[in-house]
Amino acid sequence: MARRVLVMGAAGQLGRQVCGRFASSSWRLIAADVVAAGGADLALGGLGAAAALEALQEKLRGERLDAVVNVAGGFAMGSAQDAEVLDNTKAMVESSVYSSVLAAHLAAKALKEEGLVILPGAAAAWGPTAWSLPYGLSKVAVHHLVRSLAAEGSTLPKGAKTIGLAPQILDTPQNRAAMPDADRSTWASLEEVAEQIERWCADPQLVQSGQVYLIDKAPGQPAGFEAKDPL
Amino acid sequence: MARRVLVMGAAGQLGRQVCGRFASSSWRLIAADVVAAGGADLALGGLGAAAALEALQEKLRGERLDAVVNVAGGFAMGSAQDAEVLDNTKAMVESSVYSSVLAAHLAAKALKEEGLVILPGAAAAWGPTAWSLPYGLSKVAVHHLVRSLAAEGSTLPKGAKTIGLAPQILDTPQNRAAMPDADRSTWASLEEVAEQIERWCADPQLVQSGQVYLIDKAPGQPAGFEAKDPL
Repeated sequence: MARRVLVMGAAGQLGRQVCGRFASSSWRLIAADVVAAGGADLALGGLGAAAALEALQEKLRGERLDAVVNVAGGFAMGSAQDAEVLDNTKAMVESSVYSSVLAAHLAAKALKEEGLVILPGAAAAWGPTAWSLPYGLSKVAVHHLVRSLAAEGSTLPKGAKTIGLAPQILDTPQNRAAMPDADRSTWASLEEVAEQIERWCADPQLVQSGQVYLIDKAPGQPAGFEAKDPL
Repeated sequence: MARRVLVMGAAGQLGRQVCGRFASSSWRLIAADVVAAGGADLALGGLGAAAALEALQEKLRGERLDAVVNVAGGFAMGSAQDAEVLDNTKAMVESSVYSSVLAAHLAAKALKEEGLVILPGAAAAWGPTAWSLPYGLSKVAVHHLVRSLAAEGSTLPKGAKTIGLAPQILDTPQNRAAMPDADRSTWASLEEVAEQIERWCADPQLVQSGQVYLIDKAPGQPAGFEAKDPL
């Protein structure tokens, strides 16, 4: 029987790649995003937890998920002095934190035992981020969710695991445009990350619950994934 | 010349105590909260950063603040399975995180050099919080703000310091009602905390910027304040 995965942030750059990878590996894919666009077939924008769960269960028809993968996120700058710092914080919290809390809730209700939850962290969360309060605080909150969902009493199904994924920088069209002169030999490709995500979801034995995996890449080498304590 | 302090969360239990303490120590007090009630004279609810700054500057009439104290916060339970977990997350993020980002912005714009910023952390943020994702992730985000605002490039005025305040449990009417049989001899009183806050604001040399102060209390002893790394 085909395995089932819920991908959140499915319409984003990484999300589309992840969805493609699951689809080509014969998973039954539920692709969710704030709007039903860019390949997403479950629109979660503006839905509360109860309505989102109901919409998901309609698609699951009594089955349960093998994995919940949230790659929603985005990026925002903003130091304390920045006039946009509060608005950017709200945007980052909504895309990274609220989506991850919803992912946790949907996993608690609809994941199989020994299933896997993957949440969108960031390498920046391991240190202060004076240059971006919105990005840093949102990703720190996601890292805290990872350790909390892996802890005793998380209410996830028995044996379920939760990990975070912490890119330093990914090779996206946006990053290429923003940093045209940068050395891209250390940028992990979306394909590499999507492939690793599918591999983990197919065999959650490969991961250590409660860890955040730093995505690292040396020039000319494939991307590496290093398990680290979230905070 | 009287020193000036902005207290955010002024209408709450701790906020009222803090305002009282500043007022009786001859500070010029600007008491802010989401609504102008319970002693608050600056209503910030629904205001963006620009409007909040304008409202503050109208009260400051060209002067600058010696301290910004945010004691907004609250408490919410909510494990992953809880139907209210997303709504409770939004409430906690709004009260603790957005207020703290706004406090940071107002401090960047209106604090004096060598002034002090105090933000509302929590002892719970030093570990996983499976029992409350909303509370834990919000307070972790605040602790991250503390370390980021104390870091190089924070854009706060020169020499300004930022600390967090991390209560385990405070002696409030709500906590008494929620835990009628608890041993209250280890609960710090609001008076003790308010007194310490005023002392720090009067002499920021007493604090180490970037630290979060754990409020601890042994039975029969005054409350202690222990500086700890935020994360």
